[in-house]
Amino acid sequence: MTAMLNTRVVLNARPRGVPVPEDFRVEQAPIPEPAEGEVLLRNIYLSLDPYIRGRIGDGVLGRGRPKVPLGGVIEGGTVAAVVDSCHPDFQRGDIVLSAIGWQQYGVQQAGLLHRIDPDSAPISTFLGILGMPGFTAYAGLNLIGRPQPGETVVVAAATGPVGSMVGQLARIAGAHVVGIAGGSAKVDWLKQAGFDEAVDHRSEHFEVELARATPRGIDVYFENVGGVVFDAVFPRLNPHARVPVCGLAAHYNDVPGDENGAPLQSAGAAVLLPDILSKFLQIRGFAYTEFVDCHEDEFRSRAAQWLAEGRLSYVEDVEAGIENAPSAFIKLITGRNFGKSLVAVSPDPTQE
Amino acid sequence: MTAMLNTRVVLNARPRGVPVPEDFRVEQAPIPEPAEGEVLLRNIYLSLDPYIRGRIGDGVLGRGRPKVPLGGVIEGGTVAAVVDSCHPDFQRGDIVLSAIGWQQYGVQQAGLLHRIDPDSAPISTFLGILGMPGFTAYAGLNLIGRPQPGETVVVAAATGPVGSMVGQLARIAGAHVVGIAGGSAKVDWLKQAGFDEAVDHRSEHFEVELARATPRGIDVYFENVGGVVFDAVFPRLNPHARVPVCGLAAHYNDVPGDENGAPLQSAGAAVLLPDILSKFLQIRGFAYTEFVDCHEDEFRSRAAQWLAEGRLSYVEDVEAGIENAPSAFIKLITGRNFGKSLVAVSPDPTQE
Repeated sequence: MTAMLNTRVVLNARPRGVPVPEDFRVEQAPIPEPAEGEVLLRNIYLSLDPYIRGRIGDGVLGRGRPKVPLGGVIEGGTVAAVVDSCHPDFQRGDIVLSAIGWQQYGVQQAGLLHRIDPDSAPISTFLGILGMPGFTAYAGLNLIGRPQPGETVVVAAATGPVGSMVGQLARIAGAHVVGIAGGSAKVDWLKQAGFDEAVDHRSEHFEVELARATPRGIDVYFENVGGVVFDAVFPRLNPHARVPVCGLAAHYNDVPGDENGAPLQSAGAAVLLPDILSKFLQIRGFAYTEFVDCHEDEFRSRAAQWLAEGRLSYVEDVEAGIENAPSAFIKLITGRNFGKSLVAVSPDPTQE
Repeated sequence: MTAMLNTRVVLNARPRGVPVPEDFRVEQAPIPEPAEGEVLLRNIYLSLDPYIRGRIGDGVLGRGRPKVPLGGVIEGGTVAAVVDSCHPDFQRGDIVLSAIGWQQYGVQQAGLLHRIDPDSAPISTFLGILGMPGFTAYAGLNLIGRPQPGETVVVAAATGPVGSMVGQLARIAGAHVVGIAGGSAKVDWLKQAGFDEAVDHRSEHFEVELARATPRGIDVYFENVGGVVFDAVFPRLNPHARVPVCGLAAHYNDVPGDENGAPLQSAGAAVLLPDILSKFLQIRGFAYTEFVDCHEDEFRSRAAQWLAEGRLSYVEDVEAGIENAPSAFIKLITGRNFGKSLVAVSPDPTQE
């Protein structure tokens, strides 16, 4: 609170392939002043999410959506405390959801902020299972996937904030839930979190283990990885299976023109169609934004209740210090995180 | 009506690749006698449809659905006249929809028959635009594709019974409609039938012409072909485009193990996913059966009215004589038909 300068992380170069530290630049700038109708915020937690890769690169993901300009502060959702308010609805000390990104301080229009009740749940969860990742899981699973009791639901990146919520929601829906993750620590966590089966995609017998874990085939595959996991899942889809697609972790670093980065060269793209037809599959890309108007309120109240009842587990992977956001993001984007990736930008006042 | 024997076409060998005449055998058998609750039928029109390829082969299409046994009568929908009835609901001369297949006469349980009103429309149309192909078009376009006024709808095999109905329904819905077909005669017909644009997929400039015909991209692609047409369409899909998949004419003759016939070798199947995600596409395989309970009645009444109002055009490709069903089917399955493929098995009593 005594800092006179604002440490922030800006885009130094557009990454090609896996981002490297030199793609980012840590710099200091004056703390901005809020104008009328604005609020000055101090970030507490910064959320690191895979979609940011699309915003800073020039790959196929994120096309058509605004890019972070070179030299611009990297975008990201945060939980922040109000430091100074020029709007009657907010006062110093309020905890809010903001979009001021990778910096210690920022100003935002009051109308774009969402107040958080710190007594209802740990405030960091509003960036995870109670926030955008949780709602993404809810929308994709419950509104597109629609699992029925006894059906088999498979989710990859299952210890991540979206995947772990998908699995736990599928359990609540009465489905047989199979989580896919990389490494024994993550597999162990999945079993503790109530997944019926957990499969390690790094195993050399991955396909065999997936088959063993899904003896009745797969009715819903929540797709957030792509690549070889999709290739293993696809032949096991049952008739009328649903495949909500919300992320492609295996493809975030694809480089246009490379083998992985040229999916728009559609020669052979029809390869999926015979199965889509003969098994009446539904494959649907989506973003949570599509469902916000009609379903976000119902999600927030249900999820908060499930959390309060102890029916939802979650893991956070927290790095301290805004200057470490680039390394934490690289860790996320290369799949080395374990749980929801957060940067603790300043002390959490609710934990004091 | 004086024939004492029943000429029928049975499966002689399972086709590999494109069916050949030797895969079929024309034979004669006694005319069957109806038992209690059954009806003896004389076929008037036999419907030839691509799905039959899946029922007689061992390719990937039609998997999980019953196969015609070797020596069995080839399956198919027909319009037939009642010759003899052992059920009070039907009497001699009634015109019905049946499933007695590729033969002159057959018996069927009365409960499986649907009576046709010959005064409401030409009876052959109950196998085409007012029948299963028409309802397939209606279900896929209106219930999955859901075109909005001003959106662009593309349909391939556009002079076929499904494709022509899709295009005309899309026009009724206020969409900009682009039909794809092979050859100038078909392209000319599409323009006469009210399609806004018609593109010849045999043109060496097919992709350029498709781009010119879809300057605002493609919002609904009704997929009934696959192959290179899909490959050309896919990159032009707009955000939130819908792709109902009801047929894959380009793949009916794929041979398992061949290059085209091994789509379940899913290596690279993830190639579509980045676009599915970044453009929020919906791709959904379907069969009309899924929608029969809730929507068939509404379809029949609307389509009959549109037909009576002169808002629906159709083309029929009629071959006379049940013994010519194999050659007519091979013509269909190799894309050389023009319009709904029918075999005139016996004189149409409503045309006398």
